[in-house]
Amino acid sequence: MPRYALKVEYLGAPFAGWQRQAEQPSVQGAIEAALARLEPRAHTIAAAGRTDAGVHALGQVAHCDMERDWEPFRLSEALNHHLKPDPVAIVACARVAEDWHARFSAVERQYLFRILMRRAPATHESGRVWQVRHDLDVTAMQAGADRLIGNHDFTTFRSTMCQAASPVKTLDALRVEAVDGFSGPEIRFHVRARSFLHNQVRSFVGTLERVGAHAWTPEDVSAALAARDRAACGPVCPPQGLYLARVGYPSDPFA
Amino acid sequence: MPRYALKVEYLGAPFAGWQRQAEQPSVQGAIEAALARLEPRAHTIAAAGRTDAGVHALGQVAHCDMERDWEPFRLSEALNHHLKPDPVAIVACARVAEDWHARFSAVERQYLFRILMRRAPATHESGRVWQVRHDLDVTAMQAGADRLIGNHDFTTFRSTMCQAASPVKTLDALRVEAVDGFSGPEIRFHVRARSFLHNQVRSFVGTLERVGAHAWTPEDVSAALAARDRAACGPVCPPQGLYLARVGYPSDPFA
Repeated sequence: MPRYALKVEYLGAPFAGWQRQAEQPSVQGAIEAALARLEPRAHTIAAAGRTDAGVHALGQVAHCDMERDWEPFRLSEALNHHLKPDPVAIVACARVAEDWHARFSAVERQYLFRILMRRAPATHESGRVWQVRHDLDVTAMQAGADRLIGNHDFTTFRSTMCQAASPVKTLDALRVEAVDGFSGPEIRFHVRARSFLHNQVRSFVGTLERVGAHAWTPEDVSAALAARDRAACGPVCPPQGLYLARVGYPSDPFA
Repeated sequence: MPRYALKVEYLGAPFAGWQRQAEQPSVQGAIEAALARLEPRAHTIAAAGRTDAGVHALGQVAHCDMERDWEPFRLSEALNHHLKPDPVAIVACARVAEDWHARFSAVERQYLFRILMRRAPATHESGRVWQVRHDLDVTAMQAGADRLIGNHDFTTFRSTMCQAASPVKTLDALRVEAVDGFSGPEIRFHVRARSFLHNQVRSFVGTLERVGAHAWTPEDVSAALAARDRAACGPVCPPQGLYLARVGYPSDPFA
């Protein structure tokens, strides 16, 4: 069966997450239902990152197997037609080898996390940012972030529900950026690694927010990391500021 | 009665426009209802620009008269509390002179219009941009825009419903910018004048889009302007890409 890679963009709000669930709307379920409109049968697709409820994607990658030999652009257009009005879109589609796997072939994930700093309730950005009502010190947050980069045991920064075999991961980048956003000053975290533990980005951001508020020092981040203890983590931040931005492969299937 | 200037941000989608209407939700109606929770009586507020249905604001300005002597920040916080969950927020509040008027004291309005250029349906930006499925030539659009700047009879570019006494206005700026947006390449129009005619910005953008698509030349824009005939206008574009960005006063009440 011909296999296709799909680059998928979605808004997390209406979904209980990526993963198909019996009773609740999911992004996987929405795409599989659209596939069933094209080739009526049960479809099961795999994704690079199984995002939690409320988490968005700009560049999630999934793959599907088809019976017919679809022209990739036609397949994406047909899926987008059937995905409406859900806020899910196939932004790119490519034929890939039958042993190519959206999750197992991936060698890099990039996440973006947005904090909106202001007093007044968010309107345009509601559900798309984590809003904090105080100023944050970007320089201090970057100093804290620098303590996390590299190969570490990240037990402190993973959910107790995390099913990864090992808590040891290499964090390649964690850049903290101040941006003049659409609705006010934003802090954006750009996080990059081969793979992530469950809730790792939200654990980083929640902890670094404490550094930005001067409640923690950058040294406290090092101490929390060294503790290898979930209880040493700062407060885990809410999901709605998190975006799966990009998935990297040894050779970009969409290039 | 003490008078207060309110800087207001809103998402246009849920509203039939700024102006209060008997049977439909409006931004004015939402704010007046919130005011009535603070001082129970009928309230009537005035705004710098009466935005149409679907049009957003980043910096609309209105004023209200109160019986009590409110501390401005407390007033904005109380209004924001009662405005929830509507996507309307008071982002600044200031005490002003009793003869200060949000509309009549204003000396400048700035609008932003966003076009998203891509094939796949918008998800994150749905209802917040005008989506076009073809490329647009920014240089050509700016050349067309330059033909509109200055003092002109803008009959071609105003709605036949426009109630302004004169079609002669001075357009101070119309800058066309290519931006690497959150969901793909965007064209942003930055438009500035003392005041605008009804549907003027949407008439400009709809016409300039035709220039960007090479269906019109910049010279065609000059000819349309010179015609002083509504029928000479390009297609008026949809409202959801339009934002009232800023209102200027001789002295900024929020400074």
